[in-house]
Amino acid sequence: MERLLIANRGEIAVRVIRAARELGIGTVLAASEPDAGSYAASLADAVEVVGPAPATKSYLDGAALLAAAERSGCDALHPGYGFLSENAGFARAVVTAGLTWVGPSPEAIELMGNKSRARQAADDAGVPTLPGSDGALDPDVDPLPIARAVGYPLVVKASSGGGGRGIRLVTTEADLLSTLDVARAEAQAAFGDPTVYLEQFVSRARHVEVQILGDGERIIHLGDRDCSLQRRQQKIIEEAPAPMVPDSVRETIRSSSIELGRQCGYSGLGTIEFLYDPDREQAAFIEMNTRLQVEHPVTEMVTGLDLVREQLLVASTGRLRLAQEDVTFRGHAFEFRINAEDPSQGFMPSPGTLERLEWPGGPGVRIDSGVVAGSAVAPFYDSLLAKLIVWDEGRPEAIRRSERALDEVRIEGVKTTLPLLAAVLQRPEVQDVTHHSKFIESTPDLLGAAV
Amino acid sequence: MERLLIANRGEIAVRVIRAARELGIGTVLAASEPDAGSYAASLADAVEVVGPAPATKSYLDGAALLAAAERSGCDALHPGYGFLSENAGFARAVVTAGLTWVGPSPEAIELMGNKSRARQAADDAGVPTLPGSDGALDPDVDPLPIARAVGYPLVVKASSGGGGRGIRLVTTEADLLSTLDVARAEAQAAFGDPTVYLEQFVSRARHVEVQILGDGERIIHLGDRDCSLQRRQQKIIEEAPAPMVPDSVRETIRSSSIELGRQCGYSGLGTIEFLYDPDREQAAFIEMNTRLQVEHPVTEMVTGLDLVREQLLVASTGRLRLAQEDVTFRGHAFEFRINAEDPSQGFMPSPGTLERLEWPGGPGVRIDSGVVAGSAVAPFYDSLLAKLIVWDEGRPEAIRRSERALDEVRIEGVKTTLPLLAAVLQRPEVQDVTHHSKFIESTPDLLGAAV
Repeated sequence: MERLLIANRGEIAVRVIRAARELGIGTVLAASEPDAGSYAASLADAVEVVGPAPATKSYLDGAALLAAAERSGCDALHPGYGFLSENAGFARAVVTAGLTWVGPSPEAIELMGNKSRARQAADDAGVPTLPGSDGALDPDVDPLPIARAVGYPLVVKASSGGGGRGIRLVTTEADLLSTLDVARAEAQAAFGDPTVYLEQFVSRARHVEVQILGDGERIIHLGDRDCSLQRRQQKIIEEAPAPMVPDSVRETIRSSSIELGRQCGYSGLGTIEFLYDPDREQAAFIEMNTRLQVEHPVTEMVTGLDLVREQLLVASTGRLRLAQEDVTFRGHAFEFRINAEDPSQGFMPSPGTLERLEWPGGPGVRIDSGVVAGSAVAPFYDSLLAKLIVWDEGRPEAIRRSERALDEVRIEGVKTTLPLLAAVLQRPEVQDVTHHSKFIESTPDLLGAAV
Repeated sequence: MERLLIANRGEIAVRVIRAARELGIGTVLAASEPDAGSYAASLADAVEVVGPAPATKSYLDGAALLAAAERSGCDALHPGYGFLSENAGFARAVVTAGLTWVGPSPEAIELMGNKSRARQAADDAGVPTLPGSDGALDPDVDPLPIARAVGYPLVVKASSGGGGRGIRLVTTEADLLSTLDVARAEAQAAFGDPTVYLEQFVSRARHVEVQILGDGERIIHLGDRDCSLQRRQQKIIEEAPAPMVPDSVRETIRSSSIELGRQCGYSGLGTIEFLYDPDREQAAFIEMNTRLQVEHPVTEMVTGLDLVREQLLVASTGRLRLAQEDVTFRGHAFEFRINAEDPSQGFMPSPGTLERLEWPGGPGVRIDSGVVAGSAVAPFYDSLLAKLIVWDEGRPEAIRRSERALDEVRIEGVKTTLPLLAAVLQRPEVQDVTHHSKFIESTPDLLGAAV
């Protein structure tokens, strides 16, 4: 791999440029017009403007990205996260164009992109799943007996959904048929695929996930993370390792995630997401993400590994250099996503120019930022400005260090979610790990305190 | 410990404030007048102005510092490094005033402050020393036989010197008596003490040091560092662990450093410095520093420990919470001292206002800065602006990551040593560890390249 096209923007583009540079790989940033002067652009060896602001005309335009790769003499493409990173068709086009795709095979992306097929694959690999329909519901088969076997309340999920989208709750049998009709119509409209499946509803659970890394043959895990602190299905604080998970559950989700990776010949980084029910001490498969995750740095902090480096090495050499016993764990890490949003305006995006930007420093503090002082925050994209990552020897110490680090951040020019992050971290539920994935939204005080 | 007076400035004041805050200890910064609006001042709970700019009237004025501690209700004092940190009289005055002194006992400071007595103590503890006079030279005894036994070339060292000051080289016997006269007069003028001693001269050696931590009874080591990259006796790049040191030598310097600490009932952080001669594979004692070192972060990066936290915990509880087996090592770290100096003007200090300041980020990168964008860099003090610390899984990886990180720094408004740091890191001697402590000064190309 000599020259890498980075088909993304913001902090993740910066992240990939850094990893590539350290490996001696040249970097070309595919940027939209408003991003041509971004911080990522200033760090790349070259910039290719791929189109105007709306992502559909630039970051989601596969043909424009491939043309940019060809124009700039790239031999590989890193999709980052979001945009086209989990688009099997694009992955296939990249490979067909003779480029190295930094990610798993198009087949693995496709399999995991279909949530009912993924659920089936997980079940086959011995990954614990929730009771549910055996694959997608056949529209010609009466769903009532199937639903009764699953039990109420249950959720109807779109096969082509994912990331919390395409899900509807059904609490009584009387609502099942009408909800199925609505869910199928919605799924058709949203994803071009009306297929749905049923799954048991879990009301209070934490979100726990396992990071895997493979080369198509050998698969290892890099530990787990907890990402329960979410707002509108968006994670805002993540941590590693997942706290308060019994050893037996941790062992089950790690080993079965490896088995799932093995069964689909997985290559590169992947994340298997679980709902963890602390009352029943049970974990159940949600879905698998076939890309680099936003929250990968917490895993890097506790393992000492550079996940993007490993991803580039697997993609360029075809083989995993690490064995499971090379992966060791030390301490505890949190990641805080700092978004340009205005808490007093219902967390609307807050575009503007960063008049002042001071990051915290000192031991255990890492910044992955897509911006510097003076950067313009455009209204067109996700509002993530930067991630603050904090490590310490244990969870209580990491919380105290995080409080200190959050308090040192100075941002002027745009409104940010910093007050919400600080307020969430202060909550006894979070400190004692009695929170769950609906905790923030079900705690109006918290959103009020953040204004 | 409830409220700590920080009797220092710049990055080390920021460092101590952070550690104290994470432990829930209140912080009061003793600041000179020009430092009253510094970055450290903005992070402290309170600021006490202790006097005008010249350090003699503020940071070196023990009475003013004690008055500030009393005024602000502090029960402890952290001296940082430099200034009064190794002044036994001040340490004694702090203790007499009823405050906790964050450092070793005045007796240990005094013993190690006298370099001929320290050399004797090291020898008694089994720390390898160079051939030399048996303690300070008695002015009434003929030095010629003693010098002949040591062998030429040799160095005459002032007992009250240290840190590279008060040293004169003697290459032939013909020069000995006159050099002794000059050295004694200089020592009297510089340190108020004419006592000198003799030590064998080592021409090409690396500077290797061992970090210890104790509570007066139990002593542990936190590994070693290499600080060979110096200019005018000032370290500019440091690393941990010390590379290319045979295991047997590493074991000897670590275990004998612990023994030296034990024999002087050492409490807190201390560093035992060695000359390491790679040709003979021998290490020899230089001196012991009885304080926190500038380069402590590289040890933090490889051990995961917070050395200032440990220092505060030992001072407040009287006991060491760690056992030797709790200390584990991972990876390799470099520290780069970024000074506001003008390479084209013979590295003169370069005061001014920081118009622009962008730090690198991402995995393995840490910043300990005493300044933020907009800070004024005053001409009165040491020119250290910030330290860039870089960790990776091995030394070659850490070098590549350091190159990347150094390249990302953007500083405008003052001249800095960044070009020198980058040029030094590029040198094959540094990459292959064939350099020595006079390497930078004996390589004029390097100083030229840094302009």
